[in-house]
Amino acid sequence: MKLASLKHGRDGKLVIVNSALTHMVSAENIAPTLQYALDNWTAVASKLNTLFDDLEGGNCIGLPFEQSTCASPLPRAFQWADGSAYVNHVELVRKARGAEIPKSFWTDPLMYQGGSDSFLGPHDDIQLSQDEGFGIDFEAEVAVITDDVPMAVSADQALNHIRLIMIMNDVSLRGLIPDELAKGFGFFQSKPSSAFSPVAVTPNELGNHWQNGKLHLTLLSHLNGNKFGEPNAGVDMTFDFGQLIAHAARTRPLVAGSIIGSGTVSNKLDGGPGKPISEGGAGYSCIAETRMIETIKTGKASTPFMAFGDHISIEMFDENQRSIFGQISQRVCKV
Amino acid sequence: MKLASLKHGRDGKLVIVNSALTHMVSAENIAPTLQYALDNWTAVASKLNTLFDDLEGGNCIGLPFEQSTCASPLPRAFQWADGSAYVNHVELVRKARGAEIPKSFWTDPLMYQGGSDSFLGPHDDIQLSQDEGFGIDFEAEVAVITDDVPMAVSADQALNHIRLIMIMNDVSLRGLIPDELAKGFGFFQSKPSSAFSPVAVTPNELGNHWQNGKLHLTLLSHLNGNKFGEPNAGVDMTFDFGQLIAHAARTRPLVAGSIIGSGTVSNKLDGGPGKPISEGGAGYSCIAETRMIETIKTGKASTPFMAFGDHISIEMFDENQRSIFGQISQRVCKV
Repeated sequence: MKLASLKHGRDGKLVIVNSALTHMVSAENIAPTLQYALDNWTAVASKLNTLFDDLEGGNCIGLPFEQSTCASPLPRAFQWADGSAYVNHVELVRKARGAEIPKSFWTDPLMYQGGSDSFLGPHDDIQLSQDEGFGIDFEAEVAVITDDVPMAVSADQALNHIRLIMIMNDVSLRGLIPDELAKGFGFFQSKPSSAFSPVAVTPNELGNHWQNGKLHLTLLSHLNGNKFGEPNAGVDMTFDFGQLIAHAARTRPLVAGSIIGSGTVSNKLDGGPGKPISEGGAGYSCIAETRMIETIKTGKASTPFMAFGDHISIEMFDENQRSIFGQISQRVCKV
Repeated sequence: MKLASLKHGRDGKLVIVNSALTHMVSAENIAPTLQYALDNWTAVASKLNTLFDDLEGGNCIGLPFEQSTCASPLPRAFQWADGSAYVNHVELVRKARGAEIPKSFWTDPLMYQGGSDSFLGPHDDIQLSQDEGFGIDFEAEVAVITDDVPMAVSADQALNHIRLIMIMNDVSLRGLIPDELAKGFGFFQSKPSSAFSPVAVTPNELGNHWQNGKLHLTLLSHLNGNKFGEPNAGVDMTFDFGQLIAHAARTRPLVAGSIIGSGTVSNKLDGGPGKPISEGGAGYSCIAETRMIETIKTGKASTPFMAFGDHISIEMFDENQRSIFGQISQRVCKV
């Protein structure tokens, strides 16, 4: 089934959306919010599924579904941890500054603890106090929402705790990252509020595209209307979502509604870094990666980061060219 | 007023506690949970205050208050960010490994993004899969809970957003920190679930001890029943809570119920590092600091980290020797 949270109060109002994303029906009588549904999944999932089947089968008519009325599926969450599963992306960052990545990066997932208190809606502006110097970047990623995960869960078992899947824009302020990481405590100000797709879907909705904790479909990013990236999220993902969840839960349980991200989706090309769309490659899921390639090739990055007014859209289509999660569509604006 | 969350479901059940911490009265009819109260503070605060006044003045009898029945005031929260405001603590860590701290550490707060999904109750065991190699440590800190804080708030204005104050045990796994920080993404597995005091109090409850965003009282830690630290939380705090909140909110708003921590409370002595309790000093609010002093003095740390069965208690008393927040009392156990 597919679920969305209409903008309403702090936690949104849960609706069930049909697979074509044209119609919705309120889930209010079963679960007022998505967090409530996740808190009580075993009790409510089959009822929500029935509602989805009714909507899908035409047994209930529903209302028109407008993506612009959506908050992120979880407008605020209790846990948001972002992996960096496409190690290719990390390798490029390091390569651009002439450094090798440690071998352990291929066996031990990189993950940062994100802030989960205030996610942006999928069509909300990215509001910031300045663009100059902040190095505003998007990062197109896949993310999952778990139920309650026990501490020290195995990677295999962790796969059974995935309830929903989304795509996302992990907004990053590249200009703030070097100083922040140099302090040794990880990201903070360099990771402002992120945005998730209008719709979250259960793994079964993805059919064969969801396999062994990876989503084998193209993640499409457009910057100011121009195609910027179309890597396949199932390719070059060094750690699957089971491994990422197990990493996050090694020393703590995760509560229902925990969001785990894949990190920036990035494909290699013939064993090396990918090419821009303009050169026939799969392009990139963030501006920084383009800039690294430019730096490696020419010694200098030429693609600018985002400025006020710039627009990013992120979407994923199935084999019938139907949008699975709806579109993330955001403009950068001055707060 | 003083508030606590009795263990109940995922978010606890809100009670008002008298200042002597002997009696409580349910706040259920005003706000079922503390998160609800914070989400609706302007609507409910005066009603909760009236309830507190009634309990305090004997107009309602209340029920006996048992600290052991408490969850953390917010059993799960949407935001938990921990500063490192006692730069003395950071200086010691670096000194122990022969490094200087960057000058910017005295003007730009260090802060890490913590995980807020599963806090321990104040009397809950600290459950971990192993003690060997994990380097289990406590960290005694002060923490505040905010209401909604706008992005880019000033440090002065931020002080007006503090609704509640607590003390806490920020559990740290020292054995996992070096490898984790070396990866560059900050803490994750090295910071398992933390615990907060049974009771959260409004700033006015602290009288003159709360001044300019600092809590001027002794934070008392006992390890296995022996006094381990009694530094004054108002002394050597380089950044006040207004500055810490402003740092956290530079590029994102904070939602109501955001928790901001002070970092490990640490006092200098005559401009240098403090002394252990046994040598007449104020002692330390974590084992790591003791070990650093030992390393600096003798080249080798001799105080062990916590093992299964070890106990930590953290408490703060007012000038009449009355416990303000109740006691954090935790034993380390195998999960």
